[in-house]
Amino acid sequence: MLLIEKNSLGGVCLNEGCIPTKTLLYSAKLYDSARTASKYAVNVSEASFDLPKIIARKNKVVRKLVLGIKAKMNSGNITVLTGTAEIVDSRTVRCNGEAYQGENLLVCTGSETFIPPIPGIESVPYWTHREALDNKELPASLVVVGGGVIGMEFASFFNSLGVEVTVVEMMDEILGGMDKELSGLLRAEYAKRGVRFLLSTQVTGLATLPDGEGVRYTYKPMQPDASASEEAGTANVLLMSVGRRPVSKGFGLENLHPALTERGQVKVDAHMQTSIPGVYVCGDVTGHSLLAHTAIREAEVAVHAILGKEDAMSYRAIPAVVYTNPEIAGVGETEDTALAKGLKYRVAELPMAFSGRFVAENEGVNGVCKVLLDEDERVIGAHVLGNPASEIIALAAMAIELRLTAAEWKKIVCPHPSVGEIFKEVI
Amino acid sequence: MLLIEKNSLGGVCLNEGCIPTKTLLYSAKLYDSARTASKYAVNVSEASFDLPKIIARKNKVVRKLVLGIKAKMNSGNITVLTGTAEIVDSRTVRCNGEAYQGENLLVCTGSETFIPPIPGIESVPYWTHREALDNKELPASLVVVGGGVIGMEFASFFNSLGVEVTVVEMMDEILGGMDKELSGLLRAEYAKRGVRFLLSTQVTGLATLPDGEGVRYTYKPMQPDASASEEAGTANVLLMSVGRRPVSKGFGLENLHPALTERGQVKVDAHMQTSIPGVYVCGDVTGHSLLAHTAIREAEVAVHAILGKEDAMSYRAIPAVVYTNPEIAGVGETEDTALAKGLKYRVAELPMAFSGRFVAENEGVNGVCKVLLDEDERVIGAHVLGNPASEIIALAAMAIELRLTAAEWKKIVCPHPSVGEIFKEVI
Repeated sequence: MLLIEKNSLGGVCLNEGCIPTKTLLYSAKLYDSARTASKYAVNVSEASFDLPKIIARKNKVVRKLVLGIKAKMNSGNITVLTGTAEIVDSRTVRCNGEAYQGENLLVCTGSETFIPPIPGIESVPYWTHREALDNKELPASLVVVGGGVIGMEFASFFNSLGVEVTVVEMMDEILGGMDKELSGLLRAEYAKRGVRFLLSTQVTGLATLPDGEGVRYTYKPMQPDASASEEAGTANVLLMSVGRRPVSKGFGLENLHPALTERGQVKVDAHMQTSIPGVYVCGDVTGHSLLAHTAIREAEVAVHAILGKEDAMSYRAIPAVVYTNPEIAGVGETEDTALAKGLKYRVAELPMAFSGRFVAENEGVNGVCKVLLDEDERVIGAHVLGNPASEIIALAAMAIELRLTAAEWKKIVCPHPSVGEIFKEVI
Repeated sequence: MLLIEKNSLGGVCLNEGCIPTKTLLYSAKLYDSARTASKYAVNVSEASFDLPKIIARKNKVVRKLVLGIKAKMNSGNITVLTGTAEIVDSRTVRCNGEAYQGENLLVCTGSETFIPPIPGIESVPYWTHREALDNKELPASLVVVGGGVIGMEFASFFNSLGVEVTVVEMMDEILGGMDKELSGLLRAEYAKRGVRFLLSTQVTGLATLPDGEGVRYTYKPMQPDASASEEAGTANVLLMSVGRRPVSKGFGLENLHPALTERGQVKVDAHMQTSIPGVYVCGDVTGHSLLAHTAIREAEVAVHAILGKEDAMSYRAIPAVVYTNPEIAGVGETEDTALAKGLKYRVAELPMAFSGRFVAENEGVNGVCKVLLDEDERVIGAHVLGNPASEIIALAAMAIELRLTAAEWKKIVCPHPSVGEIFKEVI
């Protein structure tokens, strides 16, 4: 087996995404905890942080995990080639001047940061997640353009460290795709901590400040009425986190002329195979989910197809997590998607305080757990605001993927006390 | 519906067990975190704790949750009677001088601390979990007799707060019933932090120190050879945590002459019904599992039986959690129980460092995840040492209860990065 990678093994997720952000966010969470420890009768006289050390630890964690992947490649007898690949035909790939043949081709080229053509963007300095992850000096203020997962995780991180943060979002709520009610509650929480949110707002222009110490941005409502005029703000640093788009061109895939979806993405069947036999496409490049755990599962399905093992991709229960503090997570249908599909459902919802453990470990913190059930009382969606949503959402993912009814789930014992019990209280 | 309770609603678990210990342990964990925060580049100049405030918060949390239960009783139109009940016959209970009739009787009398007849026990002061939970002044040293869950949770708490702790355990490992390898690793971790363990050791005598400032205890190996002589130690406080035993007598149940098991416990069928029609027994009083989440499920089964709903108790996947730091948790078969039952199984095991999130959030901390699979590759047991074992073990409980094979479990997407992913790496 041959694996060609032009950058570091592990892709965006490991090198400049999920893992590095979680490492930074954990330091921020500890710093938060230290400053609020008195709620739990623990007194911390003075807490501070060392950003260069936080970044250094992040790099160490990434290095360790990249080494783990390298070891896995070695133990699996996989040849790893560093270079830029070019697809010649469905069985031939060229890299570093050599041609390589294979019976099957797996395209996992991922996605890249999308920078919208805001007037002035070409002349102002800005961060993407990459610069935000490696920056060793705190700006006094930060404007985040795009209040999705990436934007909110960095907003959370820099807010914890004392940076004045503004989030500009085109939609009427942050975290599009997550449960809207819970996203609103999370936003209210961060607003209380000083983050400024400009919702339903577009950035209309960008310029470098005269002193070179930052950026001036102008903005206006998405649907401006006659009275709405353009307003302006400034920040030391601009973080662009509008979104990401699939990398599906420029390396020869288009020359194979694979069938495309209506939205212009490469079309795949339930085995992740494109219209060209032996050519599979997995991960962000499909434009479908842009989540590492989706990619992992898609790759398993593709490999099973290649090996002739029965398997098929299911998108019924793909969890999504935002690692703010508190975390927010969801899986399956939201009310919005259920309504759009015309599904009949009922909502069951409780404050997280119905979990004794949540109460024991979250002094003065609220949260919500919400479950969507269909007409047969099957669980079709679950949404959690409150720690550790990232871990307990996996339970709901299992229940939804296995199409459990509320009654079936209730029969499964959950340890007491645990936050995960909340689902059984809700359903 | 009539509910008779002689103490506080919520029983041992809420009033003097699971919930109060978790509240204390969370403060201890925060204190631990503050003192080790520099590993994550967060500097805490000085951390201290306020034990009376920790206890006060614990009391507040318990009060809040007891009120929650009271509200639930009200909304369910359940009459709550405070008093000591006496069973007259299978349909009649007497309390506070009145007789009450009902079609069904649910006995949930729980368990009580078992104090072994160690010579001297009658004349020395000692703590049970009750005193340990309400003590507002730290002893300099503590000897814990019994290294089970209760003993280890308090050993962990007092060790974190700086108390010199000795744990005496009759078995050759702490935490009997948990995976032995993981229990050994946890013990080694606490030994490193200064806890002294005397395994395979029995306490042979107790006496008050002459100055009244503590207790002298003598001990010897469980299987003494000729060379083994009795040794002695002292501690300011003695905590008795040898175990608990069912409260099945003294309130008239024995007068109904229910059929008993070989071990002398009240025998129940799969619906928690005793040999006497309409008389059900749930929770610790069955002597079966002594865990709150078992009791909750047993009660659901009994109520379903009363209501004529199909249901049956299953003990296949009852999780057990020890809320030390790190936590240890297990569900289903251990290697010991599998061997005793003559089951054929294989063990799959990985360090927790195979989870990227574990690495991001556990600097310099090790852990293990271990899964037992039967001949059909069904998951029959899972054991985790590492935070948050208490939450992720619920995933394994679901998989085991639903009799998933490794291949079936692998098809269910788990968020990345999360610690819960470790199971999919292992299987």
